[in-house]
Amino acid sequence: MIAGINKPRMVIDKTICLKNIKKMAEKAHRHGLIFRPHFKTHQSAEVGNWFRDFGVESITVSSVTMASYFAKHSWKDILVAFPVNILELDDINRLASEIKLSLLLESEETFKFLSNKLQHPCNFYIKIDTGYHRTGLDASNTKIISSILFKSQHDPMLSFKGFLVHSGNTYDAKSKQEIGQIHLQSIRKLQALKEEFIHAFPGLLLSIGDTPSCSIMEDFSGIDEIRPGNFVFYDVMQNELGSCHPDEIASAVLCPVVAKHMERNEIVIYGGAVHLSKDFVLNSKGEAMYGLISLLFKNNSWSRPLEETFIRKLSQEHGIIRTNKETYDRIHIGNLLAVLPVHSCLVSDLLIRESIIWD
Amino acid sequence: MIAGINKPRMVIDKTICLKNIKKMAEKAHRHGLIFRPHFKTHQSAEVGNWFRDFGVESITVSSVTMASYFAKHSWKDILVAFPVNILELDDINRLASEIKLSLLLESEETFKFLSNKLQHPCNFYIKIDTGYHRTGLDASNTKIISSILFKSQHDPMLSFKGFLVHSGNTYDAKSKQEIGQIHLQSIRKLQALKEEFIHAFPGLLLSIGDTPSCSIMEDFSGIDEIRPGNFVFYDVMQNELGSCHPDEIASAVLCPVVAKHMERNEIVIYGGAVHLSKDFVLNSKGEAMYGLISLLFKNNSWSRPLEETFIRKLSQEHGIIRTNKETYDRIHIGNLLAVLPVHSCLVSDLLIRESIIWD
Repeated sequence: MIAGINKPRMVIDKTICLKNIKKMAEKAHRHGLIFRPHFKTHQSAEVGNWFRDFGVESITVSSVTMASYFAKHSWKDILVAFPVNILELDDINRLASEIKLSLLLESEETFKFLSNKLQHPCNFYIKIDTGYHRTGLDASNTKIISSILFKSQHDPMLSFKGFLVHSGNTYDAKSKQEIGQIHLQSIRKLQALKEEFIHAFPGLLLSIGDTPSCSIMEDFSGIDEIRPGNFVFYDVMQNELGSCHPDEIASAVLCPVVAKHMERNEIVIYGGAVHLSKDFVLNSKGEAMYGLISLLFKNNSWSRPLEETFIRKLSQEHGIIRTNKETYDRIHIGNLLAVLPVHSCLVSDLLIRESIIWD
Repeated sequence: MIAGINKPRMVIDKTICLKNIKKMAEKAHRHGLIFRPHFKTHQSAEVGNWFRDFGVESITVSSVTMASYFAKHSWKDILVAFPVNILELDDINRLASEIKLSLLLESEETFKFLSNKLQHPCNFYIKIDTGYHRTGLDASNTKIISSILFKSQHDPMLSFKGFLVHSGNTYDAKSKQEIGQIHLQSIRKLQALKEEFIHAFPGLLLSIGDTPSCSIMEDFSGIDEIRPGNFVFYDVMQNELGSCHPDEIASAVLCPVVAKHMERNEIVIYGGAVHLSKDFVLNSKGEAMYGLISLLFKNNSWSRPLEETFIRKLSQEHGIIRTNKETYDRIHIGNLLAVLPVHSCLVSDLLIRESIIWD
């Protein structure tokens, strides 16, 4: 079963993935939402294809490069949910000639640039900041929003599609309740914008994106579209946030054990920052955890995460697992362990091209 | 000059690199040390070739995969400075048949495995832990060290070459003085081991590796070999530690500016965790910095890092630069900025395959 795996390899449990996709697709359907999943998490044509059986036709990506990749794999309706990089104008024009392309704008300057330079029609969303303060126009900044929108009414190339938010601040929430507060505050601000502009732009959509809100919440009042990505694999961070159950984590990195240090109950794996990324979560003692550890079963699956066992440190190729005496004694040099990643999107970016699918 | 660069690209300043290599090669020569540079930092055949003019013939890597890559590019004396992964036995045997291969051991178990399974002679170092507590046998653990060494005397395949340490704890040092203390403590422990075993193994070497010690220190008493890697590019972390001067940082990532947020003097670049990794250093206010920012000059070079300007947050593709009003006003959407990476090894791993060399 795992014969032939002798260095860090990402594995994807297709059964879990399909369950995750089905659950989110059904939730979108139940709430009457357009489901435009974010494909930055997996960046894989094969995983992407799994979404088609659930009726998905429109997708989200985070770069023009990714849009080109998925366009080549027959996706025809793609939103690049990243502030337009005007240096990629040529690629944007090429894509816009091939597919239904949606762009993300947050400044008059970029609007003007595109208005002058686009050769094929595009849709655009306006990125709204409802509290995350990463990108976007503040929801209260209706002066610039109006200015862009009313210019677009006379623009043959740029059609306004809606307001888009990514409440990434849910990732800093301490509880599900706090995620709920962030989500509700965010959708209230979006609703106010919709109310203000719906008469002039009757088809405008409200689009939200973060996996914690999309996983946990049931109130999507006024929202028209969801764009979660991470839910396809979930990970330790989402588990910590309460967005998923450990059994819903659908990807892991298999890593060989190369050394053991009895005096400190530590196990060294071949599996480091170049495989797992340096993202971490803090455990209840305030210690950084760079991954949880599961045992492998012979039927191509992994156990629940082992108690009191986590990666405490990563170097370029090394992972240092701290565990308890009992688990320490069960694990031997030459074993393969399954690392449940802290952030599956970054692991996919590093490893998906040589990953293995278990189905 | 930078025409055609429209998304994050790593650039290498060859002139600075060559100076860095020359300086370290001369230092090794001055102290009578074997210079076995670590090629995990760049992982590039082309950059590797630059070392040949400085007399380098033996190199260090951190995986069997990297060893295979450099063996293909005509390197004949390679140390894999990572605890042997016994699952890669076949690749180890193949490499050992082609080149002078050195391995790293830290357990009797792995010694025994190799002793039974190796088909071609290898050298081995014993990994010693002098205080970093990542991997290795504690320097005081002469019982296991002796046991391995005396078994090796009768082993036709495994020849003992020396004791190897990586004082990665210098990266946590708060001052040059503290780096000095860690270094001296480490070499004292190695000297004691040498004294104990030199009569039985007259050719044994002491090999040390970390870039901070190799850059800053002048006392290498008893040491025979150095294996620094990062110095070829250096980075913000080394600059913070005092291992290098900002002008010695030899790689940067060019990133397009995609948005600006005047109300908080923030600039958004296309350049995120998938380009820069998530390694960070803390500034004097305790804020995480994921990169420093330089302006590009027309002659293919970059400025000193801009004052009060750093990446405060990274998402998958976004970097958020915080700056002051003056710098904010100088930078515009569509500009390319040079990001000086916090950890150049991880950036190389992500970007060197499509990097650009400026010479």
